[in-house]
Amino acid sequence: MGEKDIYRVGILGASGYTGADLVRLLCRHPNVEIVFVTADRKAGRPLAEVFPHLSRLKVPELISIDDIEWAGIEVDAVFCALPHATSQKVIKGMLHATHHSLLDEIIVEQPEDIADDIRGEVKVIDLSADFRLRDLDTYAEWYGKTHDAPELQAKAVYGLPELYREKIRGASLVACPGCYPTAALIALVPLLERRLIAPEDIIIDAKSGITGAGRSLKEQNLFAEVSEGMHAYGIASHRHAPEIEQELSVAAGQSLKVNFTPHIVPMNRGEYETIYVRLADGQTVDDLRATLSERYRDEPFVHVDQSGQVPASRFVRGSNDCILSVFEDRIPGRAIVIATIDNLVKGSSGQAIQNMNLMLGLPEATGLEQAPLFP
Amino acid sequence: MGEKDIYRVGILGASGYTGADLVRLLCRHPNVEIVFVTADRKAGRPLAEVFPHLSRLKVPELISIDDIEWAGIEVDAVFCALPHATSQKVIKGMLHATHHSLLDEIIVEQPEDIADDIRGEVKVIDLSADFRLRDLDTYAEWYGKTHDAPELQAKAVYGLPELYREKIRGASLVACPGCYPTAALIALVPLLERRLIAPEDIIIDAKSGITGAGRSLKEQNLFAEVSEGMHAYGIASHRHAPEIEQELSVAAGQSLKVNFTPHIVPMNRGEYETIYVRLADGQTVDDLRATLSERYRDEPFVHVDQSGQVPASRFVRGSNDCILSVFEDRIPGRAIVIATIDNLVKGSSGQAIQNMNLMLGLPEATGLEQAPLFP
Amino acid sequence: MGEKDIYRVGILGASGYTGADLVRLLCRHPNVEIVFVTADRKAGRPLAEVFPHLSRLKVPELISIDDIEWAGIEVDAVFCALPHATSQKVIKGMLHATHHSLLDEIIVEQPEDIADDIRGEVKVIDLSADFRLRDLDTYAEWYGKTHDAPELQAKAVYGLPELYREKIRGASLVACPGCYPTAALIALVPLLERRLIAPEDIIIDAKSGITGAGRSLKEQNLFAEVSEGMHAYGIASHRHAPEIEQELSVAAGQSLKVNFTPHIVPMNRGEYETIYVRLADGQTVDDLRATLSERYRDEPFVHVDQSGQVPASRFVRGSNDCILSVFEDRIPGRAIVIATIDNLVKGSSGQAIQNMNLMLGLPEATGLEQAPLFP
Amino acid sequence: MGEKDIYRVGILGASGYTGADLVRLLCRHPNVEIVFVTADRKAGRPLAEVFPHLSRLKVPELISIDDIEWAGIEVDAVFCALPHATSQKVIKGMLHATHHSLLDEIIVEQPEDIADDIRGEVKVIDLSADFRLRDLDTYAEWYGKTHDAPELQAKAVYGLPELYREKIRGASLVACPGCYPTAALIALVPLLERRLIAPEDIIIDAKSGITGAGRSLKEQNLFAEVSEGMHAYGIASHRHAPEIEQELSVAAGQSLKVNFTPHIVPMNRGEYETIYVRLADGQTVDDLRATLSERYRDEPFVHVDQSGQVPASRFVRGSNDCILSVFEDRIPGRAIVIATIDNLVKGSSGQAIQNMNLMLGLPEATGLEQAPLFP
Repeated sequence: MGEKDIYRVGILGASGYTGADLVRLLCRHPNVEIVFVTADRKAGRPLAEVFPHLSRLKVPELISIDDIEWAGIEVDAVFCALPHATSQKVIKGMLHATHHSLLDEIIVEQPEDIADDIRGEVKVIDLSADFRLRDLDTYAEWYGKTHDAPELQAKAVYGLPELYREKIRGASLVACPGCYPTAALIALVPLLERRLIAPEDIIIDAKSGITGAGRSLKEQNLFAEVSEGMHAYGIASHRHAPEIEQELSVAAGQSLKVNFTPHIVPMNRGEYETIYVRLADGQTVDDLRATLSERYRDEPFVHVDQSGQVPASRFVRGSNDCILSVFEDRIPGRAIVIATIDNLVKGSSGQAIQNMNLMLGLPEATGLEQAPLFP
Repeated sequence: MGEKDIYRVGILGASGYTGADLVRLLCRHPNVEIVFVTADRKAGRPLAEVFPHLSRLKVPELISIDDIEWAGIEVDAVFCALPHATSQKVIKGMLHATHHSLLDEIIVEQPEDIADDIRGEVKVIDLSADFRLRDLDTYAEWYGKTHDAPELQAKAVYGLPELYREKIRGASLVACPGCYPTAALIALVPLLERRLIAPEDIIIDAKSGITGAGRSLKEQNLFAEVSEGMHAYGIASHRHAPEIEQELSVAAGQSLKVNFTPHIVPMNRGEYETIYVRLADGQTVDDLRATLSERYRDEPFVHVDQSGQVPASRFVRGSNDCILSVFEDRIPGRAIVIATIDNLVKGSSGQAIQNMNLMLGLPEATGLEQAPLFP
Repeated sequence: MGEKDIYRVGILGASGYTGADLVRLLCRHPNVEIVFVTADRKAGRPLAEVFPHLSRLKVPELISIDDIEWAGIEVDAVFCALPHATSQKVIKGMLHATHHSLLDEIIVEQPEDIADDIRGEVKVIDLSADFRLRDLDTYAEWYGKTHDAPELQAKAVYGLPELYREKIRGASLVACPGCYPTAALIALVPLLERRLIAPEDIIIDAKSGITGAGRSLKEQNLFAEVSEGMHAYGIASHRHAPEIEQELSVAAGQSLKVNFTPHIVPMNRGEYETIYVRLADGQTVDDLRATLSERYRDEPFVHVDQSGQVPASRFVRGSNDCILSVFEDRIPGRAIVIATIDNLVKGSSGQAIQNMNLMLGLPEATGLEQAPLFP
Repeated sequence: MGEKDIYRVGILGASGYTGADLVRLLCRHPNVEIVFVTADRKAGRPLAEVFPHLSRLKVPELISIDDIEWAGIEVDAVFCALPHATSQKVIKGMLHATHHSLLDEIIVEQPEDIADDIRGEVKVIDLSADFRLRDLDTYAEWYGKTHDAPELQAKAVYGLPELYREKIRGASLVACPGCYPTAALIALVPLLERRLIAPEDIIIDAKSGITGAGRSLKEQNLFAEVSEGMHAYGIASHRHAPEIEQELSVAAGQSLKVNFTPHIVPMNRGEYETIYVRLADGQTVDDLRATLSERYRDEPFVHVDQSGQVPASRFVRGSNDCILSVFEDRIPGRAIVIATIDNLVKGSSGQAIQNMNLMLGLPEATGLEQAPLFP
């Protein structure tokens, strides 16, 4: 892979903010051509009507998913930015229509060979929650339905490059993490893997801009309801909690539960997680910082602060960067880890493109090197 | 007290947001007449130039503190909204000039009689941090200087009406709490007093609007630095930490340290504290809620949510209200307490007026019954 | 009138921002008791669920309009904050049910006597656009439908107290002006009446906070669509244009058309109109200012700036005030008039209460003297 | 020119928002290497301390201007983002130090040959107002001082590529337009050149985000003073007025004055000008639109709307784009032209880079093709 100059890419579901940011970034990606863009309720209209800020970009007219003839279309990668519970059916249908080897039983048995078998086949990067939870019961419990494509769920790779880079390179189907889990896992996984912190006492106080809620017409997303105020929501019941717990349990080598308390603050972009942890016996804040620094030394997008400056979400706005920082707590034996990302970029569309780059064999940071926009 | 129809009130330091909110509220207080307003650097100018939104109110022209002849002025109460470390000198001078009995040694020995002795003397409500910390070494450590009026510090009452109502009624000098401690203490003191939570594991993740930083000209307060982003600050080093710890230690009956991590979010007013606690053995979330409900049943401004609705800072914007709410944590044995106030009202000027009402014998809620302004 | 201590008041349509601000203000009005509050789709729920910031106020549970038995209810005044085109039917039905003399033919012929005849009958203050346009053809043209209650339209008084105070005192049905017309008319009517400006060349560049668009679920009202940007809308086609032209034509003594170009800026409250006028021959900016000053000298809420300070919308936020200011233009023979109000207060709910006060014989400013909330 | 792969570029004055946006864009410019960055008061510190969002970019440490040895430094282009009235001295000194031919008398006499003579010499792109006003008396009147480098003023080219592209290509010193003039001139110059509108009746109602005021510590730039409100400023006295008039007078072939009324709205970036014009006899709105469309057909960054959709400033946020749109007025014989840009990009740093590209012989849009960031 990475052999082509230009890869043909499609976007399923481009009328939300995630879809828009995919278009914004892919249009400036030097190795990508967007060949279709869907938005069922807005099919037949130019994307410029739905997102006027994209009107100077060259993008095909919006079409309906049903109008895609999968058999005939040449496409190297498909981003799926559809609503939760919709992706699984659409992706399954698409793979059937293209006789994708991912549906072949044998693949399950020989996972090592997947990459070779499916070269040349379409790569699927799903931005919904449909393939994130490996346990189907957990999925059913949190999403209120039985999974429609359990056989695909089994083959999906959790798309956090900093954890699963090699698996992603060989994957045909990647489930991009939620925005909150992205920041939380980058901050916490190395600490749990090295047993530097207590697994049973992790508190993630998360703050997000409103775009995390999407472009849907809900009263609580209106300007007048969001500006000049803030609030928590989904306390102890947000769907990103089991996702965080799934990956942290792997890292800790034991099942764990976390406190995950998200808040909405009056800004568009940005995610800021203040994470309170208890140090394992004998560990120090310096140990935590050193471990994170070492782990992420060569990462293109993860930056572990050494200066002691408190990070701000605006330091990463519009970029694919993640800043980590570790601080002493006043309570002995405790520490504070801060992680901040742009929820629409590293927390969603940027990370999806990072995954695409890996899957297509392109340099990982291609098309993702825009500097943050501040002010 | 409460015998007069109109009390004569002065404000020292009216060019900040706290001063402005004092004027806003006092001008509509039915039992108050503002007789002087100071702002040293802006002396000689009408307040309307400094705060045009107040230009339709009847307020005396701004004067310099040095121009006040304390001996001759008739004033029932003085609000002191001066910078930290300035109040102590100014208040001391004022009390000397008026031969205030608060400076009389005997008072220290017979605290019970203070109220009687000093009826008719000026009441001082200090909004700075100068008289909040009872331990002079702690003061020196956190404020970087020796206290200039330790004899007054010893007589100051910590002005949180929900904790110290009776003492405030009899006080001549009240030290209004900081905005963050106000919310934190209202939430936590009853829980510690009843031993419902573990004292060594309290995490206060606090979020504030930018007015908490005052009107001072600092780069970090500029619109472009604050909007569309958020950040923590003063991690493990904010001066409100020792203040919170002072009062919580009293409640817990033991010395304790808390995690207190404040954040700035892009809004003007509002303070939102998400507090993570560990339940004492055998205690439940319901116990916490019941205790808070009972404790604050008759309070005019503290409201313990029973509905399960997550509070938002905009529910109290512009009002003297405080909303408390308790939630289950996903981690067994833990709970979440949320407290929200308007940092300029209950967190500052409104609470100061509440204290004044108590000190003057007026009904406690007088002049503080405006409904929140939303949107 | 004004004889009662407490007047019984109802609100039709309280689930929008206008309704909420009516409740906020009326609950603190010393002569008012709210006896019913309707919200059809939310009937049966407490208002606190719809507007939690009002949960500490005593307000009856929301009911459906259909559940009101007009014949039996005792109510002195009804505010109608229903969607445009809905008010006319509801008000007509209510007046029928109460055998209101406003429906009696004779009233039309003896308008002078209306006030006497209807004392004791319900006063209707309509906040919709239904009764603002006196010409039924103009109404049909701009609102796309024939008026359902033309006989009531003929008797409605345009509720701008600064222009029609005496008529309002005697009215049974008042049509409160739109928010944009309120500011524009206060600024321009005296200038046209005195022939100080050219009637054919009036340009009103208006900027509004988003609450002017109500609480309806439209994509363009989402936080992410409004924040960090601004735009014009309804250019040459906004429904407030004919309303402005109606009243300005009366003032000018000739039919005129204006440029009225509204913009949405990212704030909740506030309306700011920068009005560009051509001076009539021989007139000066000083003449304009002097005329406005004289005209509004005794008005409780209109303030003509004499200081030369440029007004800001935040100088009136949350209050019923209107600030006017006049400036020289660089183009000879031209002038600039600025008018700013809070669109939800003087532009809507506050003005409605001002009208109610007049209709009930109460002091005009009762319940409307809150100072602006800044910051 | 355009012969080199990489041009060496310096930035004088990088601690303001304009400087930061220069760095943001230049670091991603494929043909540029930043060789020095100055900030006198912050010399010796890394740029990352001043602008943490730029900390992942490779930029030299901040130095003082005085530390630059002009004689020895190899630099192809210098951006000057210094405060007004400072640039003229600094640039003069730099040109002296490098024996720049721009200071040679003969150049004035043979302007055609400038381009050839000075190939290889440093190109100066000034973002201040110092060289914008060609008339020295006008400069002195509006900036309160005599110009320090009148000989350079005479040779500076006004850096609006859409008007002066060819002159810019050959220039050694370009004076980048102010942000407000950029949008106004792009909208109006073609209309005046073709005599489509009346020159004596142009009203420019301009709205800007707060970054137009820079990063300076002024009370009016604080978050709490800007958010949740708006206001006009500099009415009939803003320094961009004479700049607009200078260029419009050239276009109209006659001296003219405009109404230019700027406003601050609560956003970071964005400039939105609603321009009210009177049509020349016989002209129509369609004529205006057709003229603008034709004039800007091949421009990379100017887009004339044909759809009738009202533009919003967020359609261009973060990009070098300018959108123009023309609308009918309700007043016969009048029209409305809307122009919107990002004040920090097309209104400042982006346009400066566009000028640099022209001066260095690079493709004009190089490094400026980022898509707008929305939301």
